[in-house]
Parts: sequence; C-alpha cells; structure tokens
Amino acid sequence: MTTLNRQWQLASRPQGEPTPANFRFVEAPLPELKDGEVLVRHHFLSLDPYMRGRMNDAKSYAQPQALGQVMGGGTAGVVAASRHAAYAVGDTVVGMGGWQEYSVVSGGERALLRKVDARLIPLSAYLGTVGMPGVTAWYGLTQIIAPKAGETVVVSAASGAVGTVVGQLAKLRGCRAVGLAGGPEKCRYVVEELGFDACIDYRLHPDLKSLSAALSEACPGGIDGCFENVGGMTLDAVLQRMNAFGRIAVCGMIAGYNGTPIPITQPQLILQWRLKVQGFIVSEHMEFWPEALQEIGGLVAARKLKYRETVAQGIAAAPEAFIGLLKGRNFGKQLVKLV
Amino acid sequence: MTTLNRQWQLASRPQGEPTPANFRFVEAPLPELKDGEVLVRHHFLSLDPYMRGRMNDAKSYAQPQALGQVMGGGTAGVVAASRHAAYAVGDTVVGMGGWQEYSVVSGGERALLRKVDARLIPLSAYLGTVGMPGVTAWYGLTQIIAPKAGETVVVSAASGAVGTVVGQLAKLRGCRAVGLAGGPEKCRYVVEELGFDACIDYRLHPDLKSLSAALSEACPGGIDGCFENVGGMTLDAVLQRMNAFGRIAVCGMIAGYNGTPIPITQPQLILQWRLKVQGFIVSEHMEFWPEALQEIGGLVAARKLKYRETVAQGIAAAPEAFIGLLKGRNFGKQLVKLV
Repeated sequence: MTTLNRQWQLASRPQGEPTPANFRFVEAPLPELKDGEVLVRHHFLSLDPYMRGRMNDAKSYAQPQALGQVMGGGTAGVVAASRHAAYAVGDTVVGMGGWQEYSVVSGGERALLRKVDARLIPLSAYLGTVGMPGVTAWYGLTQIIAPKAGETVVVSAASGAVGTVVGQLAKLRGCRAVGLAGGPEKCRYVVEELGFDACIDYRLHPDLKSLSAALSEACPGGIDGCFENVGGMTLDAVLQRMNAFGRIAVCGMIAGYNGTPIPITQPQLILQWRLKVQGFIVSEHMEFWPEALQEIGGLVAARKLKYRETVAQGIAAAPEAFIGLLKGRNFGKQLVKLV
Repeated sequence: MTTLNRQWQLASRPQGEPTPANFRFVEAPLPELKDGEVLVRHHFLSLDPYMRGRMNDAKSYAQPQALGQVMGGGTAGVVAASRHAAYAVGDTVVGMGGWQEYSVVSGGERALLRKVDARLIPLSAYLGTVGMPGVTAWYGLTQIIAPKAGETVVVSAASGAVGTVVGQLAKLRGCRAVGLAGGPEKCRYVVEELGFDACIDYRLHPDLKSLSAALSEACPGGIDGCFENVGGMTLDAVLQRMNAFGRIAVCGMIAGYNGTPIPITQPQLILQWRLKVQGFIVSEHMEFWPEALQEIGGLVAARKLKYRETVAQGIAAAPEAFIGLLKGRNFGKQLVKLV
C-alpha cells in the first residue's frame, strides 16, 4: 500500500506576523514501516501559540522549528498499521505527529505516543483540556499561584484552551475567578457557561487606565494570583491591582510573539507588593502530568469541567487557522480535523 | 536634667529628588522618663534607600513617613538612663530611634531595642553588615536565589551595604560573584578587597547593548542568580543574560524611587528562560534573622566578611548624606555619627 501523506513545512521565518507564504504544502508517499514502528493516522492536529515562538530562529528553550521540515505539533489519532507489539490497529493515541495527515513513530518512545481511552473523553480533548493546555493550567495554578480559598485569581485569554481550565479549577478551589477575553460573546461564555465570577472584555479597554479600572471593579479584594497567557498591557494593568505576596504565573506572551516586546512599565510594583513573577513551560515538569491528568480527566469525564473547541476542516486549513489563533479569532481550543 | 534633643522631621514630600527643604531641623528638651522606659543616646544613625520610598504618600508595604514627625531610621547607641530592669546605663543597643540624637523607648518592646555586644563587632556594624542590610543580603541570596556552587550570581550596587554581603556570601558558597558599581574605585574595592570575581563599572556602559556585552564578558557561563538593588537598565541587561531557571531577587529599585518608573523592556524573557522574579522586604521575614545574624556575625568577628562605611559627622549632616546616598555618593554603608 502506498499512502499519500500531505503535510505543512516551514518555508521561511516570519518577519512579524506569520503569513501563509511562510508555510509550504508538500505531498509525499509514506515510507514502509520498519520493525518497532507504528503508523498513526491523525484525526486532530493541535494548534498552539507556542508554535509562533518556535518559528523564530532565536536561542530559546526549544530548538527552533527547522526550515524545510514538517511543522511540529500535538496530534490525536488512530493506529493505522503497527509493527510494535504494544500498539494495535485501531488504538487511539496522542503524540507529537506534526502538521500532517500521518506520522510514523517508533513504538518504543512512550512519551511520543501515548494510548488514550476515547470512550468517556472525546479524542480531541486530549489535545486540549485533558492534554498539554490543561496540564499547563493545572501546573501554573497549583504549583506557582497555589491559591487559597477566598483568594482572587485573574486569567487572561480566559476562553482559550488554557484559560478555561485555570478559571474552572480556581473556582473548584473556592477562589474568585476573573477572566479577560476579547468580545462580548467570549465574556458571556466564560461567566455563564464556565462559572467565572466576572470577565472583562479587554477590547473595551484600550488603555492602561481603563483596563486597570475594570480590574478594580471585577476584583474588589485585589488580585492574589494571575495566570498570564498574554502579556503586554494586561500584565501591566494586573500588576497595578495585585495584593501583597501575589503570584503571577507567566505562561504566555502572545502579545509579544510577533516581534515587538511589550514592556512592563512599572516593575517597581514587584518590589512594592513583594510579588513572585515566574515563567514556566509545562513540558519541563513531566513529573506533575499524571496527577494533573488524573484530576482533569476525572472532571471532564464527570462533566464538571467544560471546554469549547474551534475546529478547522482539513490539513489545507492549518496555516490560516494558526494565523487566526494568533489574532484571537478562535473560541476555545483551536484544532484542525483531518478525518 | 534637661537634655536637648535635636532631630530631623519630614517637612514636605519630595517631588522627584529630595532636597534639604523637605526636612525640618527641630530642637526640643527630652521628656522625663516614665517607669519601664529607656533613654538611648544614639551614636550612629543608619541611612538607607528604603527611606526614600517612605517619604512618598503612596499606598505601599509600610505606612508613609508622617509629615511633621521625626524621620524614622535604625540607630545604634548607648543607654543613657533606664527605668527598665533589663537595661542598664552603658548597655550598647540597636533600635529604630530615627533621625535624632536621643530616643525614649519602652523597654518592653524587645524588637525595638536590642542589646548587642560591641566588643568583637563594632557598634556601627549592627546597622550594616550585622544588621538589616546584612540580613537583607542573606535572605535574598539564600532564600530566593539559593545558589549552588559553581553558579554565577550578579549583584548591583555591589559596594553598598547589601551588595558587599551578597557577593561575599556567594563566594563563600562556591559561586562566581560579579558586581556592578559606579566608578573605578568602587569596582577595584569590590574585586581586590572583597574578592568578587569581576565588577562592572556601569558608568562606562550608558546603553543597554554595552552593559549587556559587559555582563556577557564578566559572566561567560551566563547568570543564574541576580540580587537586584537598583532596577532600571541593569535589570534589563541582566535579563538578557540569564540562564534557564534563573532567580532574580528584587530588593531595591533605587533607580525608580525618584518618581519615574523604569520599564522592563523585554518581559518575555521571564517566560523564555523560565525565570523567577521575586520582590521581598526583609522585615517581613523576622523568623530568618537569628540564623542570618549568627552566620554573618560569626564571619565579621572572624574577619572573613569585610565591609566599608561612609560616615557623615553630626546630626545636622543627615539630609545631605541621605541625598548623597540616593545619588550613589556613599562608598559602603552610609552612617551618621552623632557622638
């Protein structure tokens, strides 16, 4: 059998915002499976903000995405052929298959291909709430912010794959959860569907003073913890409203990915309020994944943790969906459905 | 006996840099001692950067310095009269007597009046290396930076009361210690007298690129820990050279005290290098003082921890000495000698 595999490669590094021209569409036959290898047909491809960082050729925590290679990324799929005893055709698996329809994985690399149970939890959720974004939320909230009941936790990009989990987990821990999101529809969802106490539409607050005032109103007791997915003016406004000994988990700086860093204008507040500001990357804390996934998976299976997905159709749609994600056009976890 | 007490009160709040006109000199007789009270004659008054923050009428961790009241501050002196059983005339004590020649203290408030042994350790040292600045250095280094042997620790204001202790304690823990100080004389002292591995004269590096390059040269293995006494461009330059999982203890933002905040221009580096940036105030961690003072006091008594003092003479000199401190004119711990 010769199966055609269609994939997106990185053609060139973006200057500022990525454009479709930065990606190259390639079609090629799949190689024969060798002993110990598994062929996975991807049903879902995950699109995540961190991918923008990897498109730069900058010294960073991850190797940059190589030019002329398939774009990396999380995938969920079904084993289509197997020459490894631990995997059978039909197994549902998640891995890092990249922006393509199929991947060939060495079955021995357990971390790269994990069997999952798609009966109680939909397969796509393993790329979002029950996957990397969910564990990201869990880690930053429980290990860096570590909120006590009654404290106020603010999360930016609150309707996104990470933010939805942060706020719901905070509520389950007895906190006041306040989100920031773009537009009335997302804000309504965050409060009415997810149960946050308040959600600020940042688009209504184009300047620091206005955003800071909105935070004051939504957080009458000040802010004890902030899960920062965005950076930029949001971070500045939050700093102005932090309580003493507040904790800021820095998970994303999406506002700065496209080239222009956005300063923290009043860093003296870190001293004034004795804050802890800590950056983290969830893939460096694998020891917490089992505990995190156990809690999150149980909550999703019990329908106590909600999520929402934006699903683009077909491998051809990946670049546009990714560019939209960086502009906040998605609503919840951004996926590409391939099957 | 009617003793005249001369003191400095806060006359007005500074706009930007403090001027002598912000202070009022007042002479008044001392009151009669009541039962349980102690009269302390101050031999030394401590001048510290934190006092600038308290001169503002801003919401902060400490009550602002009240207008028309004696300027607060640490003092070391000798008991001149006592109506408290625990204190005898001639006892050497440290306390928070303020910018004046005498203070009357209720002997029961132990935290406010502490007997010290001035035989092995000079009385003035209890306001510097063996006092609040020394414990500040110890806390930030051991509890926030927590360096391992072989790591590189950078400290700004390296020749100052806090910085001298940070670097020497880091060396004793097997670290590479790199200072920043203003001018060749201070830099020479930091390296040749205190044993730092390198010291950068920040005056030779007026822009970020130049300062960053100097840090690269002085820290060939990158920076693992930074004890930040200054803020501003130094913090920005250090951020560019931090290693993954670096820790920045934010102890001072002297560059920003005079009104104009100095931004962190590349906060995305906090995420990129998974840094922890944490502000602290040593007076909120009193439980660590005994352990810190035991280590520091032992090292000073054994002459293994060096320090230097700039001593202004007489109570009248306090405001000018304080203004000079904020401009970096002092060399080591700034004191006013009153007796």
